[in-house]
Amino acid sequence: MSQKIGIVGVGRMGANMARRLKEVGYTVSAVYDVRTAAAKDLAKELGCEAATKLARITELSDVVITVVTDDKAMEGIFAKKGDSLLTGATGRLFINCATISPAVHVDVEKRAEAAGARSLEACMASSINQALQGTLYLMIGGRPEVFNRAKELLSKLSKDGELLKYIGTAGKAAQLKALVNMVMNINTAGLAEGLGLADALGLDLKIVMDVFSQTGANSRVLVTDGEDMVNRDHSCFFSASHAAKDSGIALRLSQQAKLNLPLAKATYGQYSKMTKLGLGELDKSGIAELTFKGRGAKKKAAKAKKPKKK
Amino acid sequence: MSQKIGIVGVGRMGANMARRLKEVGYTVSAVYDVRTAAAKDLAKELGCEAATKLARITELSDVVITVVTDDKAMEGIFAKKGDSLLTGATGRLFINCATISPAVHVDVEKRAEAAGARSLEACMASSINQALQGTLYLMIGGRPEVFNRAKELLSKLSKDGELLKYIGTAGKAAQLKALVNMVMNINTAGLAEGLGLADALGLDLKIVMDVFSQTGANSRVLVTDGEDMVNRDHSCFFSASHAAKDSGIALRLSQQAKLNLPLAKATYGQYSKMTKLGLGELDKSGIAELTFKGRGAKKKAAKAKKPKKK
Repeated sequence: MSQKIGIVGVGRMGANMARRLKEVGYTVSAVYDVRTAAAKDLAKELGCEAATKLARITELSDVVITVVTDDKAMEGIFAKKGDSLLTGATGRLFINCATISPAVHVDVEKRAEAAGARSLEACMASSINQALQGTLYLMIGGRPEVFNRAKELLSKLSKDGELLKYIGTAGKAAQLKALVNMVMNINTAGLAEGLGLADALGLDLKIVMDVFSQTGANSRVLVTDGEDMVNRDHSCFFSASHAAKDSGIALRLSQQAKLNLPLAKATYGQYSKMTKLGLGELDKSGIAELTFKGRGAKKKAAKAKKPKKK
Repeated sequence: MSQKIGIVGVGRMGANMARRLKEVGYTVSAVYDVRTAAAKDLAKELGCEAATKLARITELSDVVITVVTDDKAMEGIFAKKGDSLLTGATGRLFINCATISPAVHVDVEKRAEAAGARSLEACMASSINQALQGTLYLMIGGRPEVFNRAKELLSKLSKDGELLKYIGTAGKAAQLKALVNMVMNINTAGLAEGLGLADALGLDLKIVMDVFSQTGANSRVLVTDGEDMVNRDHSCFFSASHAAKDSGIALRLSQQAKLNLPLAKATYGQYSKMTKLGLGELDKSGIAELTFKGRGAKKKAAKAKKPKKK
């Protein structure tokens, strides 16, 4: 645990991972975010440096954990020129947690190795509370020997390794993560349709959810999102715009594989529509705003308050 | 239990309900099916009459349980003229279990009452093994006083009433049943897309299903249909053509309610496509034949053997 950890991207997930690692005894050396205020706040909280250059993160850290928004941000922090995590990166280990295109993970591994560093993808299938508690479900892609080197640290984030799964070489974990989110988003969009129609038919939604829970309509998202859909409580855990991005990644993989996936397409359409309607920052449960009568962009009451327990 | 029970429609569900009722001590007086051989076989097994006229079922029974295919069959057995269950129906109780349009249940209640009889809808959200074991999940629609009259018998089919739910007036249970199947079918179609894409990407499907089961992608259909999709074991529990029919009912309800449900639409499209491709008699898990590379109508190996335990 003498390793010094740097964190790049201190949104809800990254910040909680940093808190968790500090709590279990790691040294968080520095944090970085394009939103400099967020980095400063967290640095103050953790007593570390708020780096203003990516190269400074690399300089101060043995292991750098990255949790950025999308492919473009990921390519930016591992840029081949200009300010980059790759500067002076010899011997460093990069652990990349963002849900991005699998091909970008493959490319980052190449760039890291060319710089004398190592990289792993650690795709997360859990949410902010799990990050803080160190109970993330982590799917790992990369070289097995690099995984072994990172295992102790990753275990501290994944319930002492109980929720830590090695999936395959670079890109494979990201593929699986995209699939998890694709299926989750489909189930969420489908649930919103079922509850929306039940509401329009004047059925008691409590009974409807009870019946769903005891039949073939049951799903994890019924438990996590059903009530929120009914109550219009769309506090953000996993935003609609992230859902659109992840369904989009899976959809591109399906196109490359020449597979026709109409439900994935329809779901991507719905989440993209939310973004267009200005509802992208609602939780994914906010998709019910599209399927309940009288709801939607123009209506109020779709709450996007600060997160609560889920 | 001195009531005499007649059964109309002795497919997989109806036949097992008859067996169950006989086992717990009811008198099964007569059975009827348009496929006369099926009725004869079951009548022989149960030691009752294989009626060749619907009116004969009504004559021999206090309670008539109907489990027919679709709206048309339902309207046929309750025809206003010609051979009909309504002939001499005074005092009879009809319990209608088929998944059909809610409006037809409302109409059948009217017709039954005009003939001096009573009717209930008892929509089932379980499969053939549960019918035999008397552990069906039953959603009841109709008049509360008629429900009370039928409660003892219905309890014998629904785990001593533990799985017996009164939903509302005529048509309401059928609406909810259509919603259950709509959401179940969406989740099934979505799962088939996830597993099909995982397969095309060369991922280990055992790991994929394990990850799905522990994340937001989890669902009841992952448990019931996941392995069957991977193994192409599409022995029929709930056929693709029934799935198309039920998603179609829900879709019409949504159109009447002026709701746009793109996932329900896409799912209906997939199950309708199966029927068109001649795959309608496969289990609903057979939808994976549309999403796995190299599978489909022209390929062999999609088994539709006789049912096994599920």
